[in-house]
Amino acid sequence: MSLEALKSAVLEANLSTVRSGLVTATFGNASGIDRATGTVAIKPSGVPYEEMTADQIVAVSLDGAIIDQRLRPSSDLATHLVLYRAFPEIGAVIHTHSTYATIFAQSMVPIPPLGTTHADYFRGAVPLTRHLTNTEIGERYVEATGDAIVEAVGDRDPMEIPAALVAGHGPFTWGRTPAEAALNALMLEEVARMAWCSMMLRPGIRPISTELLDRHFLRKHGAAATYGQLGDET
Amino acid sequence: MSLEALKSAVLEANLSTVRSGLVTATFGNASGIDRATGTVAIKPSGVPYEEMTADQIVAVSLDGAIIDQRLRPSSDLATHLVLYRAFPEIGAVIHTHSTYATIFAQSMVPIPPLGTTHADYFRGAVPLTRHLTNTEIGERYVEATGDAIVEAVGDRDPMEIPAALVAGHGPFTWGRTPAEAALNALMLEEVARMAWCSMMLRPGIRPISTELLDRHFLRKHGAAATYGQLGDET
Amino acid sequence: MSLEALKSAVLEANLSTVRSGLVTATFGNASGIDRATGTVAIKPSGVPYEEMTADQIVAVSLDGAIIDQRLRPSSDLATHLVLYRAFPEIGAVIHTHSTYATIFAQSMVPIPPLGTTHADYFRGAVPLTRHLTNTEIGERYVEATGDAIVEAVGDRDPMEIPAALVAGHGPFTWGRTPAEAALNALMLEEVARMAWCSMMLRPGIRPISTELLDRHFLRKHGAAATYGQLGDET
Amino acid sequence: MSLEALKSAVLEANLSTVRSGLVTATFGNASGIDRATGTVAIKPSGVPYEEMTADQIVAVSLDGAIIDQRLRPSSDLATHLVLYRAFPEIGAVIHTHSTYATIFAQSMVPIPPLGTTHADYFRGAVPLTRHLTNTEIGERYVEATGDAIVEAVGDRDPMEIPAALVAGHGPFTWGRTPAEAALNALMLEEVARMAWCSMMLRPGIRPISTELLDRHFLRKHGAAATYGQLGDET
Repeated sequence: MSLEALKSAVLEANLSTVRSGLVTATFGNASGIDRATGTVAIKPSGVPYEEMTADQIVAVSLDGAIIDQRLRPSSDLATHLVLYRAFPEIGAVIHTHSTYATIFAQSMVPIPPLGTTHADYFRGAVPLTRHLTNTEIGERYVEATGDAIVEAVGDRDPMEIPAALVAGHGPFTWGRTPAEAALNALMLEEVARMAWCSMMLRPGIRPISTELLDRHFLRKHGAAATYGQLGDET
Repeated sequence: MSLEALKSAVLEANLSTVRSGLVTATFGNASGIDRATGTVAIKPSGVPYEEMTADQIVAVSLDGAIIDQRLRPSSDLATHLVLYRAFPEIGAVIHTHSTYATIFAQSMVPIPPLGTTHADYFRGAVPLTRHLTNTEIGERYVEATGDAIVEAVGDRDPMEIPAALVAGHGPFTWGRTPAEAALNALMLEEVARMAWCSMMLRPGIRPISTELLDRHFLRKHGAAATYGQLGDET
Repeated sequence: MSLEALKSAVLEANLSTVRSGLVTATFGNASGIDRATGTVAIKPSGVPYEEMTADQIVAVSLDGAIIDQRLRPSSDLATHLVLYRAFPEIGAVIHTHSTYATIFAQSMVPIPPLGTTHADYFRGAVPLTRHLTNTEIGERYVEATGDAIVEAVGDRDPMEIPAALVAGHGPFTWGRTPAEAALNALMLEEVARMAWCSMMLRPGIRPISTELLDRHFLRKHGAAATYGQLGDET
Repeated sequence: MSLEALKSAVLEANLSTVRSGLVTATFGNASGIDRATGTVAIKPSGVPYEEMTADQIVAVSLDGAIIDQRLRPSSDLATHLVLYRAFPEIGAVIHTHSTYATIFAQSMVPIPPLGTTHADYFRGAVPLTRHLTNTEIGERYVEATGDAIVEAVGDRDPMEIPAALVAGHGPFTWGRTPAEAALNALMLEEVARMAWCSMMLRPGIRPISTELLDRHFLRKHGAAATYGQLGDET
């Protein structure tokens, strides 16, 4: 993949989060990686979305060295890099403050799998990180945020749980491509909204059964997927 | 009705669910049937709505035999076919994951008739299916979903209750035409949203009286309907 | 005022309720009256809003005699006529099923004046009608709905409380002109939404003081109003 | 800054509150000040937003003397002037009745800092004014509203808490420029909405730690800010 193609895909993922209503003001950032070269492309910091161009997308190496110097990268860069190093299968990371996912993150409540809408995208509860320590907040906040996400995912397959909630902060999602990570960010928000309303309507509500969860997740993902057209990537 | 006309009406019903905000991503599917020939036309699986054309709508027979081979039909086809075979009066079926109807389905709560908005479209509570058994989930999930809907409607007239909630999943609606099924999907979502808010505001709220329910339903439906212009279909 | 001008104003009020999101499908109806001639112009029954023209607005006399025969008037006509006869100051009536106002009507809860947003448009709680009797529902439903509204307004000034909630049904608003009635319908919905959220956040919440209520209401209405430009109608 | 430039910036801030959905009907008003000349430019009273021009923005001096006589200024002018006199650092003030911020104001609940979205814009809880006395309401309502805001901010830095809720009424926000005050109004509404939902989901929810709050606020504001591009104003 050329660097231009990567930057275009990253720009488009950033813009799609705005179009979908997941991002207000300059909140949020999307990045992508070319695994062949180890180049990460990420949104510049604080540039208004309406003026953003592919040219302004910042390129860095997997260890954070700047490849393209024109603009400062998103202030959340270090979190993205931790995720790329920990999860070799992923090709893109997106951070938003989307309303309902952020509400769960603020409320310190993982998002339980209450229906098949959830199961079509996430195989089980969307995990929540622990609180960072004051030392972590003071000395290596952004990187420690990534570490906490990796810790929260634990030994689950990151391609089956392509999202996590950072305690008191908001959601990160990922995927094989920037477009897939953006779709996961959109579905996470919808699933969070439905979960919030369901938990208000029915306190003590229980997750759907493992059988129903797996039936839906595996219909869309993995080797035995039957959803979509033959040869579809997703 | 020509197959082209049927496919066009089905395409339009699919697109209208997106325009109305009932459908996100590739969720949802609408179908229609030509009762004269027994041909069912249904959305293809996993095709993005913005690229969908009438040509891509898949035609199958009532027992599921493919008439038009170009694309795979919606993965929910078997549910639609069960409904067409069980309810001879209906001409279209729509499945969505619309937010509030899905919340009721996830929360295992039928939608009670709390006001005349509900009564104008649904003569009584919108029913909820039982949970499927693990055997049903594992061996004949999609067809069993249809059976559970038919079981939940029971001996009520499907034209008077043109919707049901599948437990842990989401709503199905139907109607005489694809346009009518789409309108029922839209009104179901609005009625569900109002019911959710009413139940939060007033725990223990009771349905409206049978007299008021019937007054509104029969004003718009059946032989003695007085709503609309003379000669109107609806 | 010419009949054409009245019909145009009524059409515009009907369309504005759709643009403002107060009306879904064919719900809702707006009317206006020319007090000089006693002619009432009202939305036709069941005509899709996107196709509605000023020509199709139906003209009737204050006692319901059809002046212009082309289309059947809104099925709620008799309610509008009761209000015009009981409240000589009003020049327009609008009925919607707007979401939050309808939620209060369904929940049998008058909308309390919880803030100055409410007070800028409604001088006190928005009243709720009693339930209609089965005889009223069976024999003179639409007219009895109007009677119940008049009864709920009681001896309050209808220009100070330009709205009421019909139990189990939804809101009616009114004003001097179709545009003012439409604005009142819009503000009622916003006020209802805020009241719903406030009552959820703070159970047992109390209305604002009479002093604050009057300060805001009288700033915008009545002989001593100071809001807007000199010579403004509102 | 020329008076024309100030009026244009004030017009744009007024219009942006409508575009962002913070303002319905003629609610809301934005103003800006040129500190060099002491000229305040403010929205005219009761003019529909869709017709408003920069020419119609009213210019007054800091003590309220009219500089430009064409239209009456916003009825909330005196509140704005109190804030400009009390907070010398601010260059703009905006008042809205935005839904969720107003809900907190009506419910007499300050907005607690529940997450980093809040911390990125407001360093601590958004304060709530006391109730005005009946004498204040009767004799100097608009000015007393400003005094109550200043009292509620107390000895906190108004640039670190660029918003307050007026009891039973709604929010005021401020900033160095009209654009910054408008952004603060938008973020206040989003933060209020998230706080409302979080408090419903998790009664008794606690604010984030001071360490996390400061980490986020100081990342975007003050001498050591690291967010955005070098040389950015914000």
